[in-house]
Amino acid sequence: MPVVGVIGGGQLARMMIPPAVALGVEVRVLAEAADSSARLAATVVGDYRDTETVLAFARGCDAITFDHEHVPQEVLRALVDTGAAVRPGPDALLYAQDKLAMRARLAELGVPMPDWARVSSAAELGAFLDDHGGRAVVKTPRGGYDGKGVRVVDQSSAADDWLASGPVLAEELVPFRRELAQLVARRPSGEVRPWPVVETVQQNGVCAEVFAPAPHTTEAVERAAAEIATTVAHGLDVTGVLAVELFETTNGRVLVNELAMRPHNSGHFSIEGSVTSQFEQHVRAVLDWPLGETELRAPATVMINVFGALPADQIVASLAHQPSVKVHAYGKGPRAGRKAGHVTALGEDLDETVYRARAAAAHFEFEE
Amino acid sequence: MPVVGVIGGGQLARMMIPPAVALGVEVRVLAEAADSSARLAATVVGDYRDTETVLAFARGCDAITFDHEHVPQEVLRALVDTGAAVRPGPDALLYAQDKLAMRARLAELGVPMPDWARVSSAAELGAFLDDHGGRAVVKTPRGGYDGKGVRVVDQSSAADDWLASGPVLAEELVPFRRELAQLVARRPSGEVRPWPVVETVQQNGVCAEVFAPAPHTTEAVERAAAEIATTVAHGLDVTGVLAVELFETTNGRVLVNELAMRPHNSGHFSIEGSVTSQFEQHVRAVLDWPLGETELRAPATVMINVFGALPADQIVASLAHQPSVKVHAYGKGPRAGRKAGHVTALGEDLDETVYRARAAAAHFEFEE
Repeated sequence: MPVVGVIGGGQLARMMIPPAVALGVEVRVLAEAADSSARLAATVVGDYRDTETVLAFARGCDAITFDHEHVPQEVLRALVDTGAAVRPGPDALLYAQDKLAMRARLAELGVPMPDWARVSSAAELGAFLDDHGGRAVVKTPRGGYDGKGVRVVDQSSAADDWLASGPVLAEELVPFRRELAQLVARRPSGEVRPWPVVETVQQNGVCAEVFAPAPHTTEAVERAAAEIATTVAHGLDVTGVLAVELFETTNGRVLVNELAMRPHNSGHFSIEGSVTSQFEQHVRAVLDWPLGETELRAPATVMINVFGALPADQIVASLAHQPSVKVHAYGKGPRAGRKAGHVTALGEDLDETVYRARAAAAHFEFEE
Repeated sequence: MPVVGVIGGGQLARMMIPPAVALGVEVRVLAEAADSSARLAATVVGDYRDTETVLAFARGCDAITFDHEHVPQEVLRALVDTGAAVRPGPDALLYAQDKLAMRARLAELGVPMPDWARVSSAAELGAFLDDHGGRAVVKTPRGGYDGKGVRVVDQSSAADDWLASGPVLAEELVPFRRELAQLVARRPSGEVRPWPVVETVQQNGVCAEVFAPAPHTTEAVERAAAEIATTVAHGLDVTGVLAVELFETTNGRVLVNELAMRPHNSGHFSIEGSVTSQFEQHVRAVLDWPLGETELRAPATVMINVFGALPADQIVASLAHQPSVKVHAYGKGPRAGRKAGHVTALGEDLDETVYRARAAAAHFEFEE
């Protein structure tokens, strides 16, 4: 039986378990803690920054992949040196770990992006602000996620704290109509399959809702999004699922915002909404198996995140009220603001489907 | 987190794992062997006929359910005596364990069936044959499955070997147009939800293919099938999924052939083919949670069983050839004739969908 080792025990590892069970693939998880979200498949609890732990975990796995992008390069390279199939590999993951490296590489590939600069001082930030109407987005190159490590600034001194630790990324504040996400999967032997582009709605820098397909999308935008993601997947040698977060600008351009080299929140809709889910596709891709059809299963699919907790009594109330909506709980302890689960509704009509998904999600309330 | 304990580690227990993961429910399995199909969730390996083993396994579970119907009544009743929520309970399971008890109870409920008789001797069998054109089906009351324990006879002495151990069930050989299966789920507080009736195609007494919905079905037959299953679920106090195997006769009647009180091969189509799969519904029902919508997701769903084995290279070939077909491998060692997995295709048109499902299944060949 083929064995896929997943480093990291979060909900992304958890959601790889069902398609692996179906395909007859064994998933093994290296989890941070005994009560991880993916504990059902956790064969090792240990530190993913420790080379010996990771090498020992990887023995007997046909492919190694990830729940997150935080495994240090030296650990990844030690793993490759043992002959392990690391997917995506360290060269690709670098661009998911370091936003400055990512921008530089995407520029080489000619991928459309916001204006950006590597900024090493307040003076350089001031110059960037002067060139861009006095406002910009500043990002730490490493460690940011879900709105952390990101700041909108209008003063050259506004990133001094971050600049004390090294250069930062400054980006043009793009006047966007909405945010899109383009998911694609690529296998080592080269096959690439995109999903239809989706619309993502962020609240406080965190993904709140996803509509699949992105409603009222022009063919030009659909084509641009798929081409960008395919170019990035090949150009960065990504294997597995790649999520490209995009801005659709008010003047109809499609620009790359962020990359994730793993299943991504913007693709959770695909569990029910696509013939092949991002989790099934990721398992297939990292094993270098043929990729599945990514057609949508319904005219409208709506995914809504749930934060904090999903206690059983609230799950029961939600299921009772909305028998057609699918509830996903990540098996995590309660914590304010943390992604604890999501709900997904499929339907013929977007408005009606949004209504059902929100009605199901409204049963989940969390107070610390 | 709610905990469902499943007695038996076969593919039915295995296929409960994915929906339980999604719902945030913990599944624990009492498996017969360390390499069981459901080993990922097996917390105990032991003998389901041993009361102490079963009682120890059940501690801490919110509900106990089953992968098969073979747990002895005395073990089931000991479990109930501890206060465990056994679903379905021993009174219901008796009718799935003993075909004579089942026929007698269905007769009390007025459910349409083939003519039948409890037969204790060759003379009694001879009398039944005389009344039914000289041919009949004889079944052992207990232990039969997948065509085992079933014999078509035309001589009064043809069941002498079985009669030496006790009475058998004689049934009229029904002139049927085709076989149907009606799945329904019922929760302890009474809610019942049927799925649309499906057509099952048997080969050598074993389910080979399932078409959902049953094509070219009259409303009268649909209604009769759903009413029969609902009557049986309430009348026998079944909790969880109930599968009723039916004959549609050449003169348009619907008659009960067999019952199964658990997810059933005829419902595997529902993993992709229904808004709520039989495995998700079973988990919800045994926890007495609200049942999900059972509407079909496509005009045609086709499920085909794979026997013997699903080696990885054949899975890869099947996925490459049919990217829209879903392959399910049960993680069992190879054995001739054993159900090793299945494939499912969804489509707009039955003929086209049957073609794709059979093309995917054709990649699986097994020689001992």
